[in-house]
Amino acid sequence: MIIRNINTVDSKPVEMDGASDVSMAVMVGRTDGAPNFALRHFTVAPGGHSPRHSHDYEHEVFIVDGEGTLFLDGATHPIGAGDVVYVPANEEHQFKSTPTSPLRFLCLVPISRNCGEPTPGSG
Amino acid sequence: MIIRNINTVDSKPVEMDGASDVSMAVMVGRTDGAPNFALRHFTVAPGGHSPRHSHDYEHEVFIVDGEGTLFLDGATHPIGAGDVVYVPANEEHQFKSTPTSPLRFLCLVPISRNCGEPTPGSG
Repeated sequence: MIIRNINTVDSKPVEMDGASDVSMAVMVGRTDGAPNFALRHFTVAPGGHSPRHSHDYEHEVFIVDGEGTLFLDGATHPIGAGDVVYVPANEEHQFKSTPTSPLRFLCLVPISRNCGEPTPGSG
Repeated sequence: MIIRNINTVDSKPVEMDGASDVSMAVMVGRTDGAPNFALRHFTVAPGGHSPRHSHDYEHEVFIVDGEGTLFLDGATHPIGAGDVVYVPANEEHQFKSTPTSPLRFLCLVPISRNCGEPTPGSG
């Protein structure tokens, strides 16, 4: 049975090009037997950011706490605790914390893309 | 573009048999064009509960705030803010708040089950 707390599961630095001061923990994913989607927890340190990129699968995101901005649809939007964001496939996006506040969010991805290929970071 | 806050989107009472004092809002779902999974926000008033039931699709759950219990794997477990829960398909489960605390959680489901049939509550 899986009950895991985001405050006690260790995160690992995200080594992807364009990421800065971001860490990630797969909370539920492929290796847990999840058949359809993976739930990951991201922490962006103050002043950090995820890569500005796009890919062929969607995100569903929940901002747990902190403050930051989201680049999506060609513009920058403020985001904060309680916000739910949908990032459609193939849309350029980037999450940033503020210089003084960390940002923590859940980011869910489908387990598979492109006819069965494992989605990167799906555990 | 979808950025919606769980504190400002209206919830509707869950009318399902066995549910008591539970409301739900689909934050991102089928009608938003989400292709793989739906993100719903549930509020259980103090003393309320979801149905004790099972179904042929999984849940991935995040406890936003409050305190409660989860019945899963034949036993009752305490749950609280920051917990992530995986409820496999076909396992009996039930979420309860405490008599004095509401419980708020995200519950994600696949958009489709059983070879393409829309999952109930997927928006």
